[in-house]
Amino acid sequence: MSTSIYQQFTDYIKNETPVALATIIEGPGVGAKLLVARVDGVEKVIGSLGHPELDRVVARDTAGELEAGRTGVRHYGPEGQATPEDLIDTPTVVVFIESFSPAPQLWIFGAVDFTAALGRVAKVLGYRVTVCDAREIFATKRRFPMADEVMVTWPTPMFEKRGSTLGPRDAVCILTHDPKFDVPAVQGALSTSVGYIGVMGSRKTHNKRLERLAEVGVNSPEQLSRLMSPIGLDLGGRTPEETAIAICAEIIARRTGHSATSLKNTDGAIHS
Amino acid sequence: MSTSIYQQFTDYIKNETPVALATIIEGPGVGAKLLVARVDGVEKVIGSLGHPELDRVVARDTAGELEAGRTGVRHYGPEGQATPEDLIDTPTVVVFIESFSPAPQLWIFGAVDFTAALGRVAKVLGYRVTVCDAREIFATKRRFPMADEVMVTWPTPMFEKRGSTLGPRDAVCILTHDPKFDVPAVQGALSTSVGYIGVMGSRKTHNKRLERLAEVGVNSPEQLSRLMSPIGLDLGGRTPEETAIAICAEIIARRTGHSATSLKNTDGAIHS
Repeated sequence: MSTSIYQQFTDYIKNETPVALATIIEGPGVGAKLLVARVDGVEKVIGSLGHPELDRVVARDTAGELEAGRTGVRHYGPEGQATPEDLIDTPTVVVFIESFSPAPQLWIFGAVDFTAALGRVAKVLGYRVTVCDAREIFATKRRFPMADEVMVTWPTPMFEKRGSTLGPRDAVCILTHDPKFDVPAVQGALSTSVGYIGVMGSRKTHNKRLERLAEVGVNSPEQLSRLMSPIGLDLGGRTPEETAIAICAEIIARRTGHSATSLKNTDGAIHS
Repeated sequence: MSTSIYQQFTDYIKNETPVALATIIEGPGVGAKLLVARVDGVEKVIGSLGHPELDRVVARDTAGELEAGRTGVRHYGPEGQATPEDLIDTPTVVVFIESFSPAPQLWIFGAVDFTAALGRVAKVLGYRVTVCDAREIFATKRRFPMADEVMVTWPTPMFEKRGSTLGPRDAVCILTHDPKFDVPAVQGALSTSVGYIGVMGSRKTHNKRLERLAEVGVNSPEQLSRLMSPIGLDLGGRTPEETAIAICAEIIARRTGHSATSLKNTDGAIHS
């Protein structure tokens, strides 16, 4: 590691700035490094892998990995081809990306069948998954082996104790369908700066829930605009797994501010 | 199993009709069975689990499981509550759903980094995943342990040999970015009745690809309307995993004919 990158890296780590290092581990330029940090929401890129286009593509992927708090190996062409046009005649650049940032959190309220499917898909996306339910017989690690944590708890104490750890990268999904749980879970989530709040239920359940929320003073347009309810994109899926895709797709689109319509039917660059 | 359900079931199996059995394995009504078959694209439901609403909800979920060719356990309230309003005081009905139908297929052309992420998410959705690439060093089971099959093959012989096994439930994703592969892969996919054909690439690659496809006679509106290119929903994701969610979400929405916008911003029943 060059002295200047090392210096920057250690400074960022000391300041608790999320930072990721991309290193060429195979192919032309072995050992070259790119450092990507997110400072006040803006990405800073330091170093070079030897080609401006390779730098651009790897910086983009590294920023994505950093956002998800993930570490892994990626393959590129020497000029940054994500899936090189003619890899047969060209050496592949193998890049190891390491994120120094906590994984984003997903808290799921409700130990139901949708919970397991959502947990599995969220794990692929790199989330730290916490399942919360007040019912001891349902909230078990055995039912949710994919969860990093299964908490037997009501929503209010959970948010009081740990709500301050939730930020824009994190998500809360309320799958309980039960006002006893989902009203305090919504109140708790709204009291944090969590980036995504989804609440499951039919349109009828949604309308009843709005009444109950109004009764406890949750009725401002700002508050209601943060609630994704009914949860998920309209994919027409039926199974818990399809619902999990609909929810995760909405979480991604909401974070990036994209439209979630088919790219086929939109214009402009795919990556902004 | 009652004689009449057994009779129907065996008849369907003999006719190679996709069929699923839902059986209460715990809770009120243990042993009751519902049989769901798809005959000429229409679902037939036989039997009862003891409550009309429970029958309706389980039949819906069973049809979804059958469509995905999946088997699993689901939990309901005695009156079909998917996530019961007040399970604390109510017994849970545990239903085992078994599908007797091959899993839908996903063929991925291109052994690239996106392939592994797409394979992982597709496995959660119950697909049988086949990865195809002509490049022996990339198309390995070691790189794609989640795949059911990794084929070292060019697209044309693959479609010639097995294209007739693809139907409306199946999907072909072409991630190669290389006209040498994607032009014959698109031609091969269009020659089948596969339900989803997605082709990866930037807008620029997409426009160049359209020219190459026109050169080989692929240019009718019917053909081009089947190509989802650029592939996936516009979620603004950056990583292979986020792209995998964007693709799978599009596959589901395309199959069901739904809009893929947030349910929050649409009207009407969630499940049609």
